[in-house]
Amino acid sequence: MDDKAERLKKQIEFIVEVDKLKQIFRQTYIADGTRKENDAEHSWHLALMVFLLSEHTLEQKIDVLHTMKMVLIHDIVEIDAGDTYCYDEVAFKDKEERERKAAERIFNLLPVDQAKEVWELWEEFEEVGTPEARFAAALDRLQPLLLNYASMGRSWQEHEVKRSQCLQRNNHIENSSKVLWDYALHVLDEAVKKGYLGDEYHGDGSLDLKGR
Amino acid sequence: MDDKAERLKKQIEFIVEVDKLKQIFRQTYIADGTRKENDAEHSWHLALMVFLLSEHTLEQKIDVLHTMKMVLIHDIVEIDAGDTYCYDEVAFKDKEERERKAAERIFNLLPVDQAKEVWELWEEFEEVGTPEARFAAALDRLQPLLLNYASMGRSWQEHEVKRSQCLQRNNHIENSSKVLWDYALHVLDEAVKKGYLGDEYHGDGSLDLKGR
Repeated sequence: MDDKAERLKKQIEFIVEVDKLKQIFRQTYIADGTRKENDAEHSWHLALMVFLLSEHTLEQKIDVLHTMKMVLIHDIVEIDAGDTYCYDEVAFKDKEERERKAAERIFNLLPVDQAKEVWELWEEFEEVGTPEARFAAALDRLQPLLLNYASMGRSWQEHEVKRSQCLQRNNHIENSSKVLWDYALHVLDEAVKKGYLGDEYHGDGSLDLKGR
Repeated sequence: MDDKAERLKKQIEFIVEVDKLKQIFRQTYIADGTRKENDAEHSWHLALMVFLLSEHTLEQKIDVLHTMKMVLIHDIVEIDAGDTYCYDEVAFKDKEERERKAAERIFNLLPVDQAKEVWELWEEFEEVGTPEARFAAALDRLQPLLLNYASMGRSWQEHEVKRSQCLQRNNHIENSSKVLWDYALHVLDEAVKKGYLGDEYHGDGSLDLKGR
């Protein structure tokens, strides 16, 4: 087998393996509220948001393709490690180790250079240290917020999530984009008003970031 | 409301509207064969394939970001127009008109410049006239082929699809990449051998492109 065919064989093995992401379900419901969303759909939605919303980042310009690649692969480790609900403090303890093992197994199905590229994209996403990773993290928070609002807070209510927890969780948005953050605050206010989300709002406009 | 916030409002309206793509189901089963795949998952899978397989195109180099945007939006019209099964000749007759109406309604939720960009990407995809569109079309054929094989030909059998029909349908792959086309032929051969796909193979290696 020549080099190209050998590379392709590995790439296809990876591509078929990650089909499993379509069976990893998140806590968020799709907008019509009929069922939970899976990681593959979520990743598509984020990639589309990267395409459409990159003009809103605090930075002059970000690398759109790089960010898109990042969101396309950001949840692949959950094939082995599962989806860790963002407000589940117990599961978060060994999350890192579980996900690192998953990355080793799954990314290494690829040819070495691509395994390295995907690994670096995933680490960059996890570390949230670059403008691209900050934007990816912001969208990763904004998207479920939009779906939670559209589905009348179904997932928030199931987990008794409060406004302060949402604010804490969503500060990644503030670090990437003023206009997205303003929008997120507006959605949370509306969600509280409509009874989709539990309130801890002080009324004077100050934010309660303590959580509970 | 300032310009940025006004733009964002339109963008978000579009982003929430296209969540409906998660409820448009295709004829192809996901790899484990347990359920059909939806358009959002399919689009994610294609975008990932653009990322990983662009080295295999016949052209020296294609615009990866442009191709990725194209596959992310290529099925959005199906929110209104539905998924037209590729071997359904009756439904194909008014497909174009149904999809054009859908594009008008959905793409125009976006700010004018982005509606135009998405419309042009979609038309480019439909016309298959550029190296990027040819690659997108190739992946749009290769991906269900991989899933059909992985799910032991479940969808092929349900629709009594024959090898010759697959070949006809998949010639887009040949127009974009030699190595992907060789791979696709190999998968089809294996599928026939394993009884996943109906045979019309001549045995002398010649391809029957007549269909039936």
